[in-house]
Amino acid sequence: MQLMRLGPPDAERPVVRDADGALYDLAGLTADIGGAFLANGGIGMVRAALAAGVLPRLTGEDLRVGPPIARPGKIVCIGLNYRDHAAETGAEIPAEPVVFMKAPDTIVGPYDEVLVPRGATRTDWEVELGVVIGRTARYLTADVNPLDHVAGYVVSHDVSEREFQLERGGTWDKGKSCETFNPIGPWLVPADEVADPQELGLRLSVNGVERQNGGTKDMIFSVAEVVRYVSQFMVLRPGDLINTGTPAGVALGQPEPKPYLRAGDVVELEIDGLGRQRQTLGQA
Amino acid sequence: MQLMRLGPPDAERPVVRDADGALYDLAGLTADIGGAFLANGGIGMVRAALAAGVLPRLTGEDLRVGPPIARPGKIVCIGLNYRDHAAETGAEIPAEPVVFMKAPDTIVGPYDEVLVPRGATRTDWEVELGVVIGRTARYLTADVNPLDHVAGYVVSHDVSEREFQLERGGTWDKGKSCETFNPIGPWLVPADEVADPQELGLRLSVNGVERQNGGTKDMIFSVAEVVRYVSQFMVLRPGDLINTGTPAGVALGQPEPKPYLRAGDVVELEIDGLGRQRQTLGQA
Repeated sequence: MQLMRLGPPDAERPVVRDADGALYDLAGLTADIGGAFLANGGIGMVRAALAAGVLPRLTGEDLRVGPPIARPGKIVCIGLNYRDHAAETGAEIPAEPVVFMKAPDTIVGPYDEVLVPRGATRTDWEVELGVVIGRTARYLTADVNPLDHVAGYVVSHDVSEREFQLERGGTWDKGKSCETFNPIGPWLVPADEVADPQELGLRLSVNGVERQNGGTKDMIFSVAEVVRYVSQFMVLRPGDLINTGTPAGVALGQPEPKPYLRAGDVVELEIDGLGRQRQTLGQA
Repeated sequence: MQLMRLGPPDAERPVVRDADGALYDLAGLTADIGGAFLANGGIGMVRAALAAGVLPRLTGEDLRVGPPIARPGKIVCIGLNYRDHAAETGAEIPAEPVVFMKAPDTIVGPYDEVLVPRGATRTDWEVELGVVIGRTARYLTADVNPLDHVAGYVVSHDVSEREFQLERGGTWDKGKSCETFNPIGPWLVPADEVADPQELGLRLSVNGVERQNGGTKDMIFSVAEVVRYVSQFMVLRPGDLINTGTPAGVALGQPEPKPYLRAGDVVELEIDGLGRQRQTLGQA
């Protein structure tokens, strides 16, 4: 099963999609799919309700697909977590995870418009495995399985403006938190339905040309290592999102003239088992 | 008048404090002091209700002082925004504002315990003027007064772990988002009750020894410039917090052995007209 949120921005309703693609309304079971729902056994309750056949079916409705989780408390990102991407950007292989933040209100749906910021000329793509926290993770020790703190996985698009990120002084955050810069979804796949988060293929194309084609097996720091590591520096809470880094193939890594995104461009991205996104670029 | 939130963590009740220090319950007027309240004229409604004498008085209660605003959607920080602080850290004067993020769940009350992170040896203090957004700010142009988007001001303590920030790879965020690392309050002072945000003295002492004594007149980029600048890179929404940088005097800028914070230390900080904080350090 997959969890979704359908409807207008900031008024999405929670929905579950079964193995056949049928949609069922969860409004009677939870107000939203967020931290409280995930922390309080929401996924198990949905699974039970779906199996019991008690959920009302959604049919004939043409609703926008929103982000599959409510606005996170925080978005933590791991930079340079694939060897080939570190190489293409001219960066060294990090000795420990590189951590930066993205503003939580950058979250949009998987088919929503992504806006090139005003004054921007180097807007770039990054397909990433998104990890949604289900249980508070704080100073996780070696005897704890970090994956027990993961509620599920999403396709995440860590849109980046390279000039703002790298050439405007200070940290990377300036080029990572622009409006609409984090499409997620279409759905949240529960962690126990992903056999191995390190065996997922990720692909991204722009205007039909494949640009990224990697696999989570090539991460420098695994999902489990990342969750344990980040928990030493900050508290990870239910509903928080971690973007785990992108494989090679971003515009920044291409020969000149680099094919940065422009209004009208179409980006499509997918991860094995986690669904597919499609965004048309607009101009802010 | 000043706005406060009193009570246990995550269950604070909204309160207003009048010019004589008397406290009045706002629970009948708003559920909380957050983005929606600030965006919808909440401050004006409180002022009118206080003037009309219709608010129930709070007396004889010994309630914890919480952060004066609900958890922000994001915390944006400006680095190296005082010339003397940039100099003491060995950094160049920035040509444009240095922006980084702090996790929103680092917010605690002004008298709450601040925790030295596990494994940390270089935990440092930073007194800062905190700016709370009252109206959405997006690509503010030169003809708009950025201060019209400010709801009010708070004392903000941007606690920082220097090794995590500077020596563990990646951006500064790793040393800025540890648990309890952002005490704010004790109260929110409405923007129209602060005559000039660039004429405020800031002071901080550790165990009774004065360490910082600066003034917002020495900011490199003023509050107005910071709000306008940040709005070019991300959307500022009601309830968001901006920490505007710290003057000289942090532990990092002292001669060896630098007096980093240890469990048991007491930090006191204040800003003219915005109140006073006092935290005892604990160990995470």
